[in-house]
Amino acid sequence: MDRKQEILLAATRSFSLFGYKATTMEQIAKIANVGKGTIYTFFENKEVLFQEIVLRMIAEMKQEAVNVIKEDVSFQENAHAAVMKMLEFRETHQLFAKIIDEEQEWKTPTVKQVIGQVEQAIVSFVKEKIDKYIDKGEIRQVNSELVAYLLLKAYIAFVNDWNSTHKQSLSEKEIANFFQDTIFRSLII
Amino acid sequence: MDRKQEILLAATRSFSLFGYKATTMEQIAKIANVGKGTIYTFFENKEVLFQEIVLRMIAEMKQEAVNVIKEDVSFQENAHAAVMKMLEFRETHQLFAKIIDEEQEWKTPTVKQVIGQVEQAIVSFVKEKIDKYIDKGEIRQVNSELVAYLLLKAYIAFVNDWNSTHKQSLSEKEIANFFQDTIFRSLII
Repeated sequence: MDRKQEILLAATRSFSLFGYKATTMEQIAKIANVGKGTIYTFFENKEVLFQEIVLRMIAEMKQEAVNVIKEDVSFQENAHAAVMKMLEFRETHQLFAKIIDEEQEWKTPTVKQVIGQVEQAIVSFVKEKIDKYIDKGEIRQVNSELVAYLLLKAYIAFVNDWNSTHKQSLSEKEIANFFQDTIFRSLII
Repeated sequence: MDRKQEILLAATRSFSLFGYKATTMEQIAKIANVGKGTIYTFFENKEVLFQEIVLRMIAEMKQEAVNVIKEDVSFQENAHAAVMKMLEFRETHQLFAKIIDEEQEWKTPTVKQVIGQVEQAIVSFVKEKIDKYIDKGEIRQVNSELVAYLLLKAYIAFVNDWNSTHKQSLSEKEIANFFQDTIFRSLII
């Protein structure tokens, strides 16, 4: 693994565990086992490093979603497969849970801005997929932006919020099947 | 209006505007235009007063929901009417938005506990209604607890969260019609 990759992994770990505000470049250097100067040869400052991590995560999730979506299967099968795939991104979920929490507690401007970007990126991506299925005539003419927003918020609710009020978390299959059985089902013509 | 009612209204206003933590019994007395001693003849302390307000709000919303639900109309019509009715409770929404925000910022134990109670009360109420329609054979055999949780979280997302990232808030009709067209639609046999 190259050093840039090691720094990105170390920073991801630190942001997930301690949040954005409490993470320092020194800490990341220690976790990555490199000198502090090395980090600055790759990343100008903590904000830039954080942005890069989040952009890479979104790009990776999008890529994985695109990979599981197949031309020759139904909308419902593809939607189910995409949700199951997204549920595998445990480290990403952990980082997002941490920074959503942090934003609410500290109102850190960088974190607020990044959360807004992530939300917007996910909603446009999902909206675009839904629009395609509407064009293909596989799903109904719905307000695809509202559906995408509902999917994102429901996803966060079941993956994240549910655990703060319930002892037993929901399995990936339970969540994906539930989405299938309610929101996705309602879209079919 | 009797004095107890005036104190409840004043306290609701104060909790909605300043949150639970920043509200004092003095403040409530001033807004209600009564002496501080008068408040204590009705309510032992701020916590008891807050609990009473929240319990009354839930009871009132439940009552209003029960009032709009009619025996001789379809599930979809009743569900739509109930959502439209809930959307009228603007003052309740304002108080809840404030205390959810406060819980995230300050982790006030009383507020956390009350939010948990409210969530639980709403989810069981909605679950019970869904179970009735399942028994009547009007809607499918679904996990009614998960559906109730989804409805609550989606409701909060569209009434509250949406406005923090969008300039234009959704109208009551848009929200109710969207629920009708997605989640409720998926439940029909």
